[in-house]
Amino acid sequence: MSAASLDALIGALTCLPGVGRKSAQRLALHLLQHDRDGAERIVESLREALRRLRHCRQCRNFADDELCSICADPARDQATLCVVETPADVLAVEASGAYRGRYFVLLGKLSPLDGMGPEQIGLDLLEQQLEEGRIREIILATGATVEGDITAQYIADLAAARDITATRLARGIPLGGELEFVDSGTLSRALAARRPD
Amino acid sequence: MSAASLDALIGALTCLPGVGRKSAQRLALHLLQHDRDGAERIVESLREALRRLRHCRQCRNFADDELCSICADPARDQATLCVVETPADVLAVEASGAYRGRYFVLLGKLSPLDGMGPEQIGLDLLEQQLEEGRIREIILATGATVEGDITAQYIADLAAARDITATRLARGIPLGGELEFVDSGTLSRALAARRPD
Repeated sequence: MSAASLDALIGALTCLPGVGRKSAQRLALHLLQHDRDGAERIVESLREALRRLRHCRQCRNFADDELCSICADPARDQATLCVVETPADVLAVEASGAYRGRYFVLLGKLSPLDGMGPEQIGLDLLEQQLEEGRIREIILATGATVEGDITAQYIADLAAARDITATRLARGIPLGGELEFVDSGTLSRALAARRPD
Repeated sequence: MSAASLDALIGALTCLPGVGRKSAQRLALHLLQHDRDGAERIVESLREALRRLRHCRQCRNFADDELCSICADPARDQATLCVVETPADVLAVEASGAYRGRYFVLLGKLSPLDGMGPEQIGLDLLEQQLEEGRIREIILATGATVEGDITAQYIADLAAARDITATRLARGIPLGGELEFVDSGTLSRALAARRPD
């Protein structure tokens, strides 16, 4: 019983993650009633991003040009490569401010049942870069899940075959974590991997 | 350190209600990585809605044409008018399935401090319709808030001056609740139990 163009907009907004019909309605009415400028900005920037954004030919992260801004930056350490699953992971590591090397974005993880093999996650491109001999350390920063671990192991083997050091992000208690609220799996690993102070 | 067009998109998405920078990033990356078709659909439908949607000249609800689909429907009871604050409230009452009359959408509520006087909420247009003599009952379905109550009282006075019955939704509605978020069962009961003002 509402306008057709409003219905279409509500339907389209439900494709956002975590947005059901009710939230989509709320978003649509907010934009149309209270923030038409913001709505115009979403239209323009989303269209522009869809048109311009591609994957960096070196690291597969999102980029406006052939190379992403990190790969194109000569100040970044070219000998260290951090392998992550998604562009969001790159943003997370960058936000930590603790890393100055390059990245390689898998855009997924090994999961044969879902049709994700070595080629789908760009390992041919990664092997090519390992062959070039510039990379001295590869940091395996895949997720702490079963598939993430399997993917990391697979890439560690590729590195070992070329005498390249492979390291993994330390696993343990998160900063600010109260021991009593940390899950037992994490705690058990943190105990096993305890280090001299 | 990410692509400029991605940054612009993330910035634009923060104008959605309840979406901060982190959520905006998640939405943007999801659309670009996993649902480009959905992203295209959002661009198209949002642009179309911005271009086409206007306010119905009779009830001020969103409409694709001069009249909204409810005002244009001859099967609706023309003698009963339900006054609500927002288009979302119309959708909520419609979803209850308990109402067959017309609506009047205030697009706000009386709030002199925010510059919302009788004219801003379209009461001149409402008075005009009350003058025409077709309306026999006016249902005051503003929110159960202080401003909502004041607005309802103001409109009840307009109705009383013209010997039109004014009723209010029964107070089954939780105090302080906005109409938009009430479940349709409660709303349906409140409609059925409306009482003379």
